[in-house]
Amino acid sequence: MKHFVSIKDLSKENIELIIKRALKFKESNLFKGKLKDKTIVTLFFENSTRTRTSFEIAAKNMGAEVVNIDHNQSSLKKGETDYDTIINLSAMRPDAFVIRHYQSGYPEFLSKFTNIPVINAGDGTNEHPSQAILDAITMFEAKGKLDNLNVCIIGDISNSRVAKSHMWMAKLFDWKLSFYGPKTMLPKQEWLDGVKIEPNLQEALSDKDFIILLRIQLERKSGQNIPSLKEYSRFFGIGEKNMPNAYIMHPGPVNRNVELSSALMDKHEKILITKQVENGVFARMAIFEFCLL
Amino acid sequence: MKHFVSIKDLSKENIELIIKRALKFKESNLFKGKLKDKTIVTLFFENSTRTRTSFEIAAKNMGAEVVNIDHNQSSLKKGETDYDTIINLSAMRPDAFVIRHYQSGYPEFLSKFTNIPVINAGDGTNEHPSQAILDAITMFEAKGKLDNLNVCIIGDISNSRVAKSHMWMAKLFDWKLSFYGPKTMLPKQEWLDGVKIEPNLQEALSDKDFIILLRIQLERKSGQNIPSLKEYSRFFGIGEKNMPNAYIMHPGPVNRNVELSSALMDKHEKILITKQVENGVFARMAIFEFCLL
Amino acid sequence: MKHFVSIKDLSKENIELIIKRALKFKESNLFKGKLKDKTIVTLFFENSTRTRTSFEIAAKNMGAEVVNIDHNQSSLKKGETDYDTIINLSAMRPDAFVIRHYQSGYPEFLSKFTNIPVINAGDGTNEHPSQAILDAITMFEAKGKLDNLNVCIIGDISNSRVAKSHMWMAKLFDWKLSFYGPKTMLPKQEWLDGVKIEPNLQEALSDKDFIILLRIQLERKSGQNIPSLKEYSRFFGIGEKNMPNAYIMHPGPVNRNVELSSALMDKHEKILITKQVENGVFARMAIFEFCLL
Repeated sequence: MKHFVSIKDLSKENIELIIKRALKFKESNLFKGKLKDKTIVTLFFENSTRTRTSFEIAAKNMGAEVVNIDHNQSSLKKGETDYDTIINLSAMRPDAFVIRHYQSGYPEFLSKFTNIPVINAGDGTNEHPSQAILDAITMFEAKGKLDNLNVCIIGDISNSRVAKSHMWMAKLFDWKLSFYGPKTMLPKQEWLDGVKIEPNLQEALSDKDFIILLRIQLERKSGQNIPSLKEYSRFFGIGEKNMPNAYIMHPGPVNRNVELSSALMDKHEKILITKQVENGVFARMAIFEFCLL
Repeated sequence: MKHFVSIKDLSKENIELIIKRALKFKESNLFKGKLKDKTIVTLFFENSTRTRTSFEIAAKNMGAEVVNIDHNQSSLKKGETDYDTIINLSAMRPDAFVIRHYQSGYPEFLSKFTNIPVINAGDGTNEHPSQAILDAITMFEAKGKLDNLNVCIIGDISNSRVAKSHMWMAKLFDWKLSFYGPKTMLPKQEWLDGVKIEPNLQEALSDKDFIILLRIQLERKSGQNIPSLKEYSRFFGIGEKNMPNAYIMHPGPVNRNVELSSALMDKHEKILITKQVENGVFARMAIFEFCLL
Repeated sequence: MKHFVSIKDLSKENIELIIKRALKFKESNLFKGKLKDKTIVTLFFENSTRTRTSFEIAAKNMGAEVVNIDHNQSSLKKGETDYDTIINLSAMRPDAFVIRHYQSGYPEFLSKFTNIPVINAGDGTNEHPSQAILDAITMFEAKGKLDNLNVCIIGDISNSRVAKSHMWMAKLFDWKLSFYGPKTMLPKQEWLDGVKIEPNLQEALSDKDFIILLRIQLERKSGQNIPSLKEYSRFFGIGEKNMPNAYIMHPGPVNRNVELSSALMDKHEKILITKQVENGVFARMAIFEFCLL
């Protein structure tokens, strides 16, 4: 039994194994029936239809049963602690939990009290490890390697669990990792740990293998520090004029004509966004295998 | 691979085939396991528990996995276009989409961007083709034929996707089709295309094989043009006093004592409403077979 | 075909059979595949994620398909009577209904109109028979018998469907049953029927085999008659100081430090709360077998 709560906790070998299996599943039917008679509980303390659907399809592809609990609307909320929720659900003996939580560190915290595998589907501003794995699969397909890549992440870095997970990927795979974005969205110096802050968009875009654009999440912050969408697009967006030589990725959903020009997004061959979604299902199948089998 | 987005797009042969298969499924277990290892995504941009449940039971009867996405409440909404939603969900490689949309024409529009079958579960005021099929099955069971029927639809015609789908059925099967209802709920002349408007309720009810009553959908329109429920019942409803010789149908849910007297509904043998619901599951099984197999 | 709507309707033999089967399922894989090709509809007119999840996991463990209908949010609500809902859902031919209803007696009422088994997942302040069964299983495991137990239920008795179901259990198994709680939460004399009201907490806790604590449901009543949580804890709660010799049970979710001290709850071996949740899944599997097979 293994939990899957952060990239930080995984070894390079773990990650390479998961990626290898995901790619195997992509080219074969080897995953069929692997989770027969298993029941996966998705427990989302924060809505995310996209991520939940990807996990659900992955589990069902492998023959598992899935029980969805939308904790936002659920009657579980009536005063029960999250600790009691996990203890009680564990007593029902499912085979794995897929947990999304609005609070950083909560899936890891909960994993300490159950001997059922906990898979982190994103926690607060901390990590989104399955997204990092699917990104890595997509990178490997594009470049044929994962070591020594040159990667820049652009956007609201300080609130991004994707950026945080990739900081750990960068260490394991010796990436040159850099960040760029509005000053108010950049992280504090103390947790940068060797990651470079790019001085301007032009620098951010040059000599990279991959640019990862992040979604402007207007729902997260009060308005005062966010540039208008028009300004954001002008100073931090990618369009035909400044399209770099790099591959472009985005965890979705894209705000068209904000982070990325709509025309570019639909036509340019170096835009990998749909491939990321596709690889997401295979990544999650490999993660289930890693944790349950 | 075939989409199923409108009766308009189907041939008489298509429809006869689907009906024949539905009736076959009704009398045998032939449908069992037919969708094994298939995953159906129901994507409802507008709530409809009744229709979603019917599709879900149909799919599960055939051995498929079902992933329900309630787009009303879903986090998909956060700014993503419906176009991107369908592209991204398609990348997850399900085997079919069942789409309900509040906007006319949207399932057809979305079907152009995916090579995964799109099944229309009702779009705006445009069509509700699976309802038309289940109605046709119910008619065929009652009369032993579908050609040359005499059918009147009563109610809020202009907002009814059921009426629209039946206009296409009428063409294919040479029905004498007529409409009746409050003047404010009748369609514009230009899309009537040969359908007769009945002059009064008595005429509407005479010499028909089938009367299809439509639900007064108070949620759709601002109040000013709708008669009160009491008035509606008096001038457009069916009760013991004016019960015609025809079979009575209704897509549900019935407002008891508005469109139809409650006592009549529960006892009269020519009321086919429950049969319609029952046939709905078999109709949807046959539609899945038509599109996926 | 059998309904399962109340303990009142069951014989001692029925209950012993269900408990025996649940314990069999707990120690073996005998339940696997027993509900293959069956479809269970959960129809919740009142939210209860905990109970719904337990039934859903039970059904899926046995190989059934589950269709969840959350009637609170569902479009079923648009004016349709619950009677029509059950008639229409029955026409879709599922193999069982699991119904939670906010109104006492409703699952039984609805069961009269369908020949599909109705399983009561709790109705108003009337009964919660599957909870009573899982409690009985937990008691049997602890004491090796069910007859002649000495049981006290403490809390909001008058609103408790659990207390009501246990009154019927008490008759069948010759329990000495007593109640204790704030005066405003005790039932009217006329339905006590032999159940003793304890004079004070000390008496309530002495010489019992089992103490069942009930949750203070602040959401049920207007505030005026409820003691504050602090007062409740002081006069009706169990802590280290007054921990009796009895086993402690609670249908959940526990308000920690209100009905039961948090420290006690996590450490004391005679607290059976997590075992109750665990047995809930096996109880529901046995109930499905009882009704469907």
